[in-house]
Amino acid sequence: MTVLRITFLGTGGSVPSPHRNPSAIAVRRESELFLFDCGEGTQQQMMRAKTGMKITAIFITHFHADHVLGIPGLLQTLSLQGRTEPLEIYGPKGVRRFLYHLLSLGYASKNFDVKAIELQHGDVIRRQNYEIRAFKTEHNIRSIGYVLEEAMRPGKFNRERAIELGLKPGPLFSKLQHGESVFVNGREIRPEDVLGPPRPGRKIVYTGDTRPCESVIQAAENADILIHDGSLAEAEKELAIEYMHSTVTEAAEVAAKANVRKLILTHISARYDEEDAKKLEEEARKIFPNTIVASDLMTIDVKYRDKEQG
Amino acid sequence: MTVLRITFLGTGGSVPSPHRNPSAIAVRRESELFLFDCGEGTQQQMMRAKTGMKITAIFITHFHADHVLGIPGLLQTLSLQGRTEPLEIYGPKGVRRFLYHLLSLGYASKNFDVKAIELQHGDVIRRQNYEIRAFKTEHNIRSIGYVLEEAMRPGKFNRERAIELGLKPGPLFSKLQHGESVFVNGREIRPEDVLGPPRPGRKIVYTGDTRPCESVIQAAENADILIHDGSLAEAEKELAIEYMHSTVTEAAEVAAKANVRKLILTHISARYDEEDAKKLEEEARKIFPNTIVASDLMTIDVKYRDKEQG
Repeated sequence: MTVLRITFLGTGGSVPSPHRNPSAIAVRRESELFLFDCGEGTQQQMMRAKTGMKITAIFITHFHADHVLGIPGLLQTLSLQGRTEPLEIYGPKGVRRFLYHLLSLGYASKNFDVKAIELQHGDVIRRQNYEIRAFKTEHNIRSIGYVLEEAMRPGKFNRERAIELGLKPGPLFSKLQHGESVFVNGREIRPEDVLGPPRPGRKIVYTGDTRPCESVIQAAENADILIHDGSLAEAEKELAIEYMHSTVTEAAEVAAKANVRKLILTHISARYDEEDAKKLEEEARKIFPNTIVASDLMTIDVKYRDKEQG
Repeated sequence: MTVLRITFLGTGGSVPSPHRNPSAIAVRRESELFLFDCGEGTQQQMMRAKTGMKITAIFITHFHADHVLGIPGLLQTLSLQGRTEPLEIYGPKGVRRFLYHLLSLGYASKNFDVKAIELQHGDVIRRQNYEIRAFKTEHNIRSIGYVLEEAMRPGKFNRERAIELGLKPGPLFSKLQHGESVFVNGREIRPEDVLGPPRPGRKIVYTGDTRPCESVIQAAENADILIHDGSLAEAEKELAIEYMHSTVTEAAEVAAKANVRKLILTHISARYDEEDAKKLEEEARKIFPNTIVASDLMTIDVKYRDKEQG
């Protein structure tokens, strides 16, 4: 199975706590490693979580300090570790100006290029077998969220049917599984003859900081994992509105409307201790049972829908 | 006794490790709290060490990333916590320009003023009962170290002599202890009649990153605590020279020449694990026995010379 692993590096709010770093999430997909937001201390959290440091790209949701201040130290460390491959940093409009200030610090000799790429709602980065899309969110400065969605996978291989058609287990099986036709006694056997219907890849969605909103519901539709701003309890809804965050109840409502498989709440306010975090989880589960509150260094391996039990 | 407490918030080298944050030291003196350097993650280390967050001033030794990148996040948090008092940030020439770019990285709304003050070798910041002095160090960019030295304290009060002179325990004792003359039966009793010779305050010295050098030896003369760059083992001396750091043996030699009471090694390279750190300590102790290698969250209460045993 293709690895798709989410590691929560920082699950705290605007003010971190001793146990919750500012926002950062690592996503490993096979040999590639993505960061979604990169708050202060991200590089050490990566070391602690053993994510590896060979980052493919960084995706920033917005330029509040608690989502970006880990970038300069991380770049410095990558440079000292000898990185030479260029690094792409994606974010909403403003990412270039941010990078200008970063590079103006002039403290480090960088051995690699850093490229800033501005994204807006609807932009798609297409890669082999997956894509990453930006969608608009509602925060108090310009902000976007991200969808990482894999392409459809070939259908299930019907081994018995293949043998019936005269094939023997071996290289021809593999060719069919990879979508190529093969010939047996001059007769063409096509992949669709032995494969079930195409199966969905996986889809994970990260909102960054946001009020609950329609664009998130649309982006998150049928996602395997929705990682949503869950800053506050419903009892603090006024604060959530004032600072343009979400309550965990609101996040759960979004998850239900979007028909996601699992909701993970992050950006937990420092006012809550670990006991309180359990209560936040219980609150959200009343609306959307398959909810967990993220904690720092928590890791989730995202399974294919058709591989999961139950 | 006046509290003088040193808390090591970050004792790692240019690349942090899971257990060693980048450089930062908190020094509490009674109600005042100073930071010496402020690497990435300092704010969370302060929370973990429970130093309090009411910072009087920040002193930066030089502008390498691992000594300064904790500043913007810390300022953001102080602001969110409601700080309104201005904050002074001292450092070598360049601190103003550096601060401009650093503060432009995160879009923090600051409720308080930040004042950057440039210092050079010999500059003295005088405060009641103590002063902080800058001295030159030898690193590969402009750099300074800091001395915090308390004023002399009044001598020991000779209670028996005071009673002999006709005084009774009470307010007159206190006046004499605080340096005021008193009158008994029309006769003046001066503080020097009942006080021993003035006693030294405490002196702590922090080098930041440096090669061993004469200006450090001079600045550290007779210090109670010398916190010195101890990046590498003597076996790695060539690297220490190339990157302008010190070996622990070199630091120990400085401590011996400066006749300090205690040497604390910091800025420990990430190549060393905790087992190795013990070996660094042993290596330094061959030259200067009263040496320890700092570790993150380690706290030292600095005692007066005349109060300490042995």
